[in-house]
Amino acid sequence: MVQIPKTPDPASSSAPRSVPTSADVARLAGVSRATVSYVLNNTSAVRISEPTRRRVHEAARELGYVPHAAARSLRAGHSRLVLMPAPSFPAGPLYSRFLTELQWALGRLDYTVVQHGTVGLRGDEAARAWAEMRPVAVLVPGFDLGPQGVEVLKRSGARAVVTLGPEAVDGAHALLMDHEAVGHSAARHLYERGRRRIGVLIPAEEGLEVFSAPRLDGARRAVEGTDATVTRVPLAYEERDAARLAARWKSLGLDAVFAYNDEYAMLLMRALQDEGLAIPGDTAVIGADDLMLGRLLRPRLSTVHLELPSGRDLAALVDRAVRDPDAAPERHKVLGAAVVHRESS
Amino acid sequence: MVQIPKTPDPASSSAPRSVPTSADVARLAGVSRATVSYVLNNTSAVRISEPTRRRVHEAARELGYVPHAAARSLRAGHSRLVLMPAPSFPAGPLYSRFLTELQWALGRLDYTVVQHGTVGLRGDEAARAWAEMRPVAVLVPGFDLGPQGVEVLKRSGARAVVTLGPEAVDGAHALLMDHEAVGHSAARHLYERGRRRIGVLIPAEEGLEVFSAPRLDGARRAVEGTDATVTRVPLAYEERDAARLAARWKSLGLDAVFAYNDEYAMLLMRALQDEGLAIPGDTAVIGADDLMLGRLLRPRLSTVHLELPSGRDLAALVDRAVRDPDAAPERHKVLGAAVVHRESS
Repeated sequence: MVQIPKTPDPASSSAPRSVPTSADVARLAGVSRATVSYVLNNTSAVRISEPTRRRVHEAARELGYVPHAAARSLRAGHSRLVLMPAPSFPAGPLYSRFLTELQWALGRLDYTVVQHGTVGLRGDEAARAWAEMRPVAVLVPGFDLGPQGVEVLKRSGARAVVTLGPEAVDGAHALLMDHEAVGHSAARHLYERGRRRIGVLIPAEEGLEVFSAPRLDGARRAVEGTDATVTRVPLAYEERDAARLAARWKSLGLDAVFAYNDEYAMLLMRALQDEGLAIPGDTAVIGADDLMLGRLLRPRLSTVHLELPSGRDLAALVDRAVRDPDAAPERHKVLGAAVVHRESS
Repeated sequence: MVQIPKTPDPASSSAPRSVPTSADVARLAGVSRATVSYVLNNTSAVRISEPTRRRVHEAARELGYVPHAAARSLRAGHSRLVLMPAPSFPAGPLYSRFLTELQWALGRLDYTVVQHGTVGLRGDEAARAWAEMRPVAVLVPGFDLGPQGVEVLKRSGARAVVTLGPEAVDGAHALLMDHEAVGHSAARHLYERGRRRIGVLIPAEEGLEVFSAPRLDGARRAVEGTDATVTRVPLAYEERDAARLAARWKSLGLDAVFAYNDEYAMLLMRALQDEGLAIPGDTAVIGADDLMLGRLLRPRLSTVHLELPSGRDLAALVDRAVRDPDAAPERHKVLGAAVVHRESS
């Protein structure tokens, strides 16, 4: 980083200021601390006149006071904090959109959503780090959380734990992302297009096994009992590795490949084309995620369109679970998988 | 969502369990509450024997007790919480990598990083929502935070506010992302390749103006006093809009375009090629971000390579600022912009 010469900052030379409290606000507004709390936390249970509300808000603004979420949650015995571990894989456009919609929906239900960056922690160890924040609910996407981790979270006061992954975890609500169905749809499509030697691309990058393993299983299941074969094909997301794979492609004897997702499909397709292979003539290619870039490729990329759960439905499930923490865990299947057939297969 | 028939959950029918406290751990381990606190918060100031440490950890594990971050921060007067608003734009691969590195580096300094999803809130209103979490530091990337917002955060106890954006904000440390330099480099490159009628693509999507406006300014500055012109070209990230733009491309009379970034460049390049235009013959194209996909296009995409601040440097700045909250705000220029010339320009 380039250090730029500093200009003196007038604010920094003043005496340290103390943090204003709700008592300061009450004093300035001429009301009780309870009234301050009712007004600023938007409690609807208590009737407070409009002029009083305005006086409290003005005093709070003048003093620069904002309520303390942690103190409030300590008093209430639970927070409105919904915690999600930040994904350890680079979030694609599909997941980003889902996340924004979910945060919006939970915000409308008066929850605060934070993503916790648990870099380097795994499974139940990560769960302990999350528990320190005392969330009222935890949403865990594609993570290796076990029943013990769920227990730790519940003992620390979480009323709802919801997992998004291929399998349910004891004690937690589950949105079952059926990645087997993704691989199944892709391989079945290739089989129906007359292909019999099907490769399934497995990203070499860490953190993606939870998705790639069930996709491979699904592809195997799709051709079970037929004369078709499924071959595991590892690939790192790098041009060099793709070129190496393309150079020995003919020796693999594959006539089709399910390329994990659209981005890996783009990488592989380019390498195969550079090697002089015709797509789909020599090898049919299908991706997944239905990203814009697939439509921009030539030939246009066939893909598996995924339907993530709606943010609104998931927010409603969280709210239901928080209100009734003793209800039996819900199980929902949420990943729609539909083949979009274009030109590459 | 498809509801799956529930299996009864043995845990849910048991009596509600109370949340274990540090007093419970102290009782089980036969030590004082202070000792529990020292051991579980990893305090190095106090010497505690290894067998005692082990006993406390075992008791905590048995009871499912984890320390309460909020209670600890209330006692300590400040937290170790570093808050970042979750970006309102879809985070690309470049930003995701930066974020992971930053979280890792702050984690090593014993900070907890959370991303706060402030969907629908803007500027100082958002700052109030962040302040409720009582973070010890706030990192604000490309957001419309003003001096009042900084003041709200500081009054609520934040020791450091660091902005990442084109301009510094009073009272906050600033990592100055020089997006003008990105546009300047791109336009200068096109000018040096002999182009005189330069288009600058402006995404129609919300939330990207903070990047696109200074890039356009930089491009204008690059050709000031020459015979070249710069034309603002709006485009939404959709095939239809790109096709419409390509259809009237000749009437614009442009011989080059800086396409905002590599993804918009891919969209525009495809539309121009489908319209029968030669690249770079008829129109030179340059993107920005230096993504993998640019290397996979034909012709290979020229781009502006950006150098985001290192996560380690930024973590060190945060730590320095937290330790000395009254130091004058630091200003660092952090966005390196270097043209990578490939085949499209």
